[in-house]
Amino acid sequence: MTTSNAPFSIAEYERRLACVRAAMAAAGLDALFVTDPSNQAWLTGYDGWSFYVHQGVIVTMEDEPVWWGRHMDMMGGRRTCWMQHDNILGYGDHFVQSTVVHPMQDLARHLEGRGLQRARIGVEMENYYYSAKAHAVLGAELPDAGLVDATALVNWQRLVKSSDEIAFIRKAARISEHVIRTAIDRAAPGVRKNDLVADILHAGITGVGDDWGDYPAIVPLTPSGLDATAAHLTWNGTPMREGEATFFELSGCYRRYHAPLCRTVFLGTPPDDVRRVEAAQIEGIAAGLEAARAGNRTCDIANAFMAVMARCGIERSGRMGYPVGLSYPPDWGERTASIRSEDETVLEPGMTFHFMPALWMDTWGLETTETILIRDDGPAEPLCNVERKLFVKS
Amino acid sequence: MTTSNAPFSIAEYERRLACVRAAMAAAGLDALFVTDPSNQAWLTGYDGWSFYVHQGVIVTMEDEPVWWGRHMDMMGGRRTCWMQHDNILGYGDHFVQSTVVHPMQDLARHLEGRGLQRARIGVEMENYYYSAKAHAVLGAELPDAGLVDATALVNWQRLVKSSDEIAFIRKAARISEHVIRTAIDRAAPGVRKNDLVADILHAGITGVGDDWGDYPAIVPLTPSGLDATAAHLTWNGTPMREGEATFFELSGCYRRYHAPLCRTVFLGTPPDDVRRVEAAQIEGIAAGLEAARAGNRTCDIANAFMAVMARCGIERSGRMGYPVGLSYPPDWGERTASIRSEDETVLEPGMTFHFMPALWMDTWGLETTETILIRDDGPAEPLCNVERKLFVKS
Repeated sequence: MTTSNAPFSIAEYERRLACVRAAMAAAGLDALFVTDPSNQAWLTGYDGWSFYVHQGVIVTMEDEPVWWGRHMDMMGGRRTCWMQHDNILGYGDHFVQSTVVHPMQDLARHLEGRGLQRARIGVEMENYYYSAKAHAVLGAELPDAGLVDATALVNWQRLVKSSDEIAFIRKAARISEHVIRTAIDRAAPGVRKNDLVADILHAGITGVGDDWGDYPAIVPLTPSGLDATAAHLTWNGTPMREGEATFFELSGCYRRYHAPLCRTVFLGTPPDDVRRVEAAQIEGIAAGLEAARAGNRTCDIANAFMAVMARCGIERSGRMGYPVGLSYPPDWGERTASIRSEDETVLEPGMTFHFMPALWMDTWGLETTETILIRDDGPAEPLCNVERKLFVKS
Repeated sequence: MTTSNAPFSIAEYERRLACVRAAMAAAGLDALFVTDPSNQAWLTGYDGWSFYVHQGVIVTMEDEPVWWGRHMDMMGGRRTCWMQHDNILGYGDHFVQSTVVHPMQDLARHLEGRGLQRARIGVEMENYYYSAKAHAVLGAELPDAGLVDATALVNWQRLVKSSDEIAFIRKAARISEHVIRTAIDRAAPGVRKNDLVADILHAGITGVGDDWGDYPAIVPLTPSGLDATAAHLTWNGTPMREGEATFFELSGCYRRYHAPLCRTVFLGTPPDDVRRVEAAQIEGIAAGLEAARAGNRTCDIANAFMAVMARCGIERSGRMGYPVGLSYPPDWGERTASIRSEDETVLEPGMTFHFMPALWMDTWGLETTETILIRDDGPAEPLCNVERKLFVKS
């Protein structure tokens, strides 16, 4: 074992690997090729902005995992992974964005070299960074192997967090509080939105005390007024205006772990309908937290929230949350369970979700959300401590 | 035509569409499904952080393009695209990250509704966000259609920039200068790297004058010392140290347009070998710029640089640049031509490249780069104006 800059102990990585191997055995897999950068980091510690080229982790039923990527990123692998340097592999630069050769040809040779040419190999069919072309090339290069869809096999192992991971998410939550408070403090009529975002990013990367801030997997979403009827607009240079609501969808990030938190700021005096919806949303969130107990299901959280909305005459269906933890762009969700009425995942202690029952209305939007931890007993613990209300500044 | 918040004129979007249709005709395509967020924005103006779910643009040989995405993102489409609202389509939230249904089923119904069930439809096989699963589902849903690999068909049309685009890239270049100067000014022994990155991000989003900063498609890469032997590490909370080189790989961004710029800072007195490599790199870049002329090829730039390296006894091969312009994460390159010895793309006026002949050595790294514009005559124009040298602070 080499000295490692990876953020967790070798024992923690071995625990994770054991979970993944049990799932592989259950799925009848001999090997797994992991493309999702979050899964790669969770298994190996690998951390770099290199996922714009093909790379991944090979997991077999024994031995250390193998990180495979572009040759120039091997140095990053050696600097960040916990494995021996022999298990960091690189392909030549001529494979990068070539129309003639494809990195999956190199990967296929490595898999053959490990005797996997006839193996059942899991691949993440539904994942950013495992392109349709990559799958076609890998299949053609390994005609006798069985490439099996193992989408989210690793992600599901990430659902229940270890105590080490929860400690990281709590650090992220402190940073989230700092970031949201910065947004609320600085929001004022006449302030250019980009100047506010500059302060938000500065707070998030500064972090809190010794806990330095990493980049969140999603940039600040900060739309005002009509733009806030849309869920995923970012920002522009327009000054904030009296009479408008702005929602802030933000997260602190500590060593790739997230604790998203949204609050909405109204400049001026909110109209009655905004106040009415605010009250319903707050009540609905409280009902959701009560339902977010070990042994209940994800749908119970959504249904508890929606029951309050129905009573208040507010239409809201769809997805209202997802698990969070370690993530890379473009998403800080883990893409397994969803908090929605058709999802019956049973809640267990140690799960962490972004409970995100935002309300996008016809002419404005209201986002008030919490990152929550499922506990052994009782309702979920909101991990951030910022007053749960519409912030009004006049 | 509806009023539009899109950043360019309708005439500019029509010019782009005409280029794409000519390429589609040459490829024998009836329709094109565009997944790349940069291509979507280039064709329609769509701008939102929603590419973590399936979305795209349908282009046929006539009519306006159609933006298709998650139902909740239709509002974002209406707020940012230039097309009529009838041409913004949405799928239900139950399709999102479901293991039961897939958004491509919804897309297939729309394609059928447009009479394309037997059409030759181009798809971007090698692109982030067009997953292996998406391709499999779309193919199964449209068994009589021909799904044809049209990777980079749109990207190639983006290679030569319009004067409107060059104006945006020049604005981005002003922001890049501000960002790099901030990094150079603030770098000092004892400064935590994340605090420096907080200032870098603040400068980039503040922008320059009225030109507000957008988020670059890559986060700051700012490794020091041994970490700088790796190409793609980001940052941590370690204080900067005397005797170490830190490279800054950064870009300003103006309404999604980039002008990447890298400089390296040495704290203390650089050893002779660093000085020797610095001199070679500067000379090599000058030689590359001389070769970067309309009518020459991309390989001529790389070969000119490598000839200087060879004379100086420095080993450097591989890719040393790529076209830049409009981009979304995870890459600010356009993924078409490369500046490398095996690429023979002929240079034309209006092309913009990040000429990026970084040198990653055994124990340190040196990045000095330029975003360049190919002119009608003469050598390429570096778009940023920051002294081209190793910055030494003692």
